[in-house]
Amino acid sequence: MYSGSIQKLIQEFEKLPGIGHKSAQRIAFHLLNQPIAKVNQFAEVLVNTRKNTSLCSQCFNFTEKSLCNICAGAKRDASTICVVEEPKDVLAVERIKEYNGIYHVLHGAISPMRGIGPEQIKIKELLYRLKDETVSEIILATNPNVEGEATAMYLSRLIKPIGVKVTRIAHGIPIGGDLEYADEVTLFKAIEGRRDIL
Amino acid sequence: MYSGSIQKLIQEFEKLPGIGHKSAQRIAFHLLNQPIAKVNQFAEVLVNTRKNTSLCSQCFNFTEKSLCNICAGAKRDASTICVVEEPKDVLAVERIKEYNGIYHVLHGAISPMRGIGPEQIKIKELLYRLKDETVSEIILATNPNVEGEATAMYLSRLIKPIGVKVTRIAHGIPIGGDLEYADEVTLFKAIEGRRDIL
Repeated sequence: MYSGSIQKLIQEFEKLPGIGHKSAQRIAFHLLNQPIAKVNQFAEVLVNTRKNTSLCSQCFNFTEKSLCNICAGAKRDASTICVVEEPKDVLAVERIKEYNGIYHVLHGAISPMRGIGPEQIKIKELLYRLKDETVSEIILATNPNVEGEATAMYLSRLIKPIGVKVTRIAHGIPIGGDLEYADEVTLFKAIEGRRDIL
Repeated sequence: MYSGSIQKLIQEFEKLPGIGHKSAQRIAFHLLNQPIAKVNQFAEVLVNTRKNTSLCSQCFNFTEKSLCNICAGAKRDASTICVVEEPKDVLAVERIKEYNGIYHVLHGAISPMRGIGPEQIKIKELLYRLKDETVSEIILATNPNVEGEATAMYLSRLIKPIGVKVTRIAHGIPIGGDLEYADEVTLFKAIEGRRDIL
């Protein structure tokens, strides 16, 4: 019903994560209702930000400089590295405002099913960072699914022999969650990982 | 935590309808992971589509030509005009694939609360279309809320004296809906608008 161009705009928005056909239509129509200058400005922010963004040379998080704000931050404890799969996971950990170490972004997880081996993610770059001996702990914060667990296991076996402490984030019942609605695996992990009450 | 530019990109996506802070972050990060060429192409589609889109000179739906595809379509029945608030409502009616008439997009609804009077939406343009006497029915398909009802009422009083048949889309229990969960107003409308079983 609509001409090729409007249809194409809707399709472009449909490609974005979490945007279905109806949302894409809604967004496209919203933008067609905006003044041309505003739409141009939006496109400009998009193009410029992508152009100026690269990966931090140390932790591989997104940055517009050579070192990201966290790696460059004098107040961060460089002896602890939290290993995550994606840049958005850094954001998730930063939100709790309690972690003061630095990060390492793998840009994926080992997944034989999808043909992603250890050499396709930033693992050798992590090992390289362990060489200067300032690092005393590696926190493995990959996702609690098959790929994330496999990656954590792989990294643990690789790093422990070097003599660096390796830890894994705890799995269990989320705060505010309900035992009744927890799936079996989570409940099993919660019981398995039980701790003494102090 | 992120530099101004990435933050700004997230903020731009947050301005879009139906996109919250987390979705905006997710979309921004997805685009930062895409090749520069793909992001540039996305921005280009956006800028060009907005630039080339205007309102149909007859029905005020979005179009890239002077007349939209529906108004220009030889197979559409020009004697029936379905009046809607927004271009996205045209899409909703077209989806049922049963309506063969043409449209009129008001670009809003009368809303004294928000200071929108009859002269701020495309009402005089609708009256102008009734002058050539080919139109025999106006279907008022404005939304079933206070503004939409007020607009329908206003249009009805304006158009009936001209001698054109004016109808309103039916309100009632949605198909697949449940009487138990219907709100009082909808149920009242459903009973009020009851029809003989043929």
